[in-house]
Amino acid sequence: MEILKQRILKDGVVKEGNVLKVDKFLNHQMDVKLFNDIGEEFAKRFAGTGVNKILTIESSGIGIACIAAQHFNNCPVIFAKKTLSKNLDGEMFVTQVKSYTKGVTYDVMVSEKYLGKGDKVLIIDDFLANGCALMGLIDIVKQSGAELAGAGIVIEKGFQVGGKTIRDMGVKLESLAIVDSMDNGTITFRD
Amino acid sequence: MEILKQRILKDGVVKEGNVLKVDKFLNHQMDVKLFNDIGEEFAKRFAGTGVNKILTIESSGIGIACIAAQHFNNCPVIFAKKTLSKNLDGEMFVTQVKSYTKGVTYDVMVSEKYLGKGDKVLIIDDFLANGCALMGLIDIVKQSGAELAGAGIVIEKGFQVGGKTIRDMGVKLESLAIVDSMDNGTITFRD
Repeated sequence: MEILKQRILKDGVVKEGNVLKVDKFLNHQMDVKLFNDIGEEFAKRFAGTGVNKILTIESSGIGIACIAAQHFNNCPVIFAKKTLSKNLDGEMFVTQVKSYTKGVTYDVMVSEKYLGKGDKVLIIDDFLANGCALMGLIDIVKQSGAELAGAGIVIEKGFQVGGKTIRDMGVKLESLAIVDSMDNGTITFRD
Repeated sequence: MEILKQRILKDGVVKEGNVLKVDKFLNHQMDVKLFNDIGEEFAKRFAGTGVNKILTIESSGIGIACIAAQHFNNCPVIFAKKTLSKNLDGEMFVTQVKSYTKGVTYDVMVSEKYLGKGDKVLIIDDFLANGCALMGLIDIVKQSGAELAGAGIVIEKGFQVGGKTIRDMGVKLESLAIVDSMDNGTITFRD
């Protein structure tokens, strides 16, 4: 997605440890107009798949998923929660997700009320690196008996294992920008 | 906002300890069409205030804030983060917020790059109860030198102190549904 790649080149900052900071437009300050372009692109790439629910994970995926849902007939968006709070009770689908960024393992959960047989689920998230969060969300979709339409990712770090692992599972994975390297601070995209 | 009140009566569940669960449409599964109605209503109530940035806090505020921003000329949305992650560095505005729901105190932070003099900030959140989160966000706006246009809340628990405290500070606070009591599971709204 050319407009996204240009934005990453303009406003992304490469930090030590292969960290790509895009907090100017994606995951701290959010550019809602760009999110609509992203949502439109996801709708094109998943056209005809019958998506009727979008699943994401707190926090950075939520804004993108909500704006994208407008391009999928305003379908419901569910965000998986990372910790047990008093306001989420009842039966939950639960999986474990390791966050390398934060160095912790979370319980990730979705209420059984909102996912199940007959649902066609598109997973949306901002980043794909090692794939732990996405694997966790796929596991939740499987537990629920819903059908996985695929996964839409804004930025994939193509030099980490997540993308290959998940494509090898047969999942329709669409990443709008795949960064193949950031050596010496220069971002190179996959064609 | 009548359509919201009707939705709360239809899909809200009152739980022990004055907990109002609205996870069917607001803060776990999200109804994006309703969020657009909410955004439109915020735009009416804050018309002419010159809002050019929306500030919210992870996680439940993000979807509402992003959809609402479309009704404020696609202005940027910033979500305050609750913990220090490796991807947020540099200078930050920081404040402390106690979460009664989760029983912990968070550091809440916003990058100094994205708020400052010349900004007119609308704070948006899903719930207002004791007001701790909102007070924290107001503190961050003050630290930044930006001007506070006001705060838009989806559901205010009118029987808790937050709303009164914040209105007494002179803040333009607009809550789209104010619940005055939930005694015996019956939700009563303020007129």
